[in-house]
Amino acid sequence: MIIREATRADLPAIAALLADDGLGRGRESADMSRYEQAFYRMQSQPGNVYLVIEEGTELLACLQYTVIHGLSRSGASRAQVEGVRVSANHRGKRLGERIMQAAIDRARQEGCALIQLTTDRSRADAHRFYERLGFTASHHGMKMNL
Amino acid sequence: MIIREATRADLPAIAALLADDGLGRGRESADMSRYEQAFYRMQSQPGNVYLVIEEGTELLACLQYTVIHGLSRSGASRAQVEGVRVSANHRGKRLGERIMQAAIDRARQEGCALIQLTTDRSRADAHRFYERLGFTASHHGMKMNL
Repeated sequence: MIIREATRADLPAIAALLADDGLGRGRESADMSRYEQAFYRMQSQPGNVYLVIEEGTELLACLQYTVIHGLSRSGASRAQVEGVRVSANHRGKRLGERIMQAAIDRARQEGCALIQLTTDRSRADAHRFYERLGFTASHHGMKMNL
Repeated sequence: MIIREATRADLPAIAALLADDGLGRGRESADMSRYEQAFYRMQSQPGNVYLVIEEGTELLACLQYTVIHGLSRSGASRAQVEGVRVSANHRGKRLGERIMQAAIDRARQEGCALIQLTTDRSRADAHRFYERLGFTASHHGMKMNL
């Protein structure tokens, strides 16, 4: 089992992970060209990658890891995590913890002052999961669809 | 009064705006080289800028606007806002609303599917301000200092 950065070849498996989720189901697409175009856009942004857990030929988990440089907090960089998913066939194996820990370790190595994410209020289990990892729900996560 | 992208020459004024804030005060620095280095890091990331409101030679407000390309939501890009500040001498003039509206308009023009931010739970006024603009506190904003 290895954790690595995703490549273009991983896109069908990542799209399947993203869709295999209560909230994600209605938001994802069967049109792979949308994910390919989005992946090229991600590649234009240094520090914006997907991490995946791979075992054999199967992807078991993924998350998006993005470094955001900024001026506040004395010019701090922060890491941001989105799109955390674990394959439904592989729950209960602490894969979420492993891939999140990889993101936390990478953020620390890259000199980020903090790591952050938002989690939908309806995901009560996720909230507790992130608190166990050391996150604090110190903020409201506010969104507006455009 | 104009809204434009910040340049390196704006860094002292932006640092002053960031420090002139109840939560920001203890987190900012008098060492301008930290902001200059951070600004160069930001410039290495396409889509990561500060917007400022300028009147004459004075900066009245600022925010960090970052486009994050991604795979979830069928390959959606999202805009993220950080570091929103209005000069203490210019409160009550709807400057916060103007600069946030500029960020929202830009996100829409750039094809972002959503715009998001987190606001500290202790900022009750900010929470109401963002709800008036159309944001929904649908998520927990979780952070961990590294």
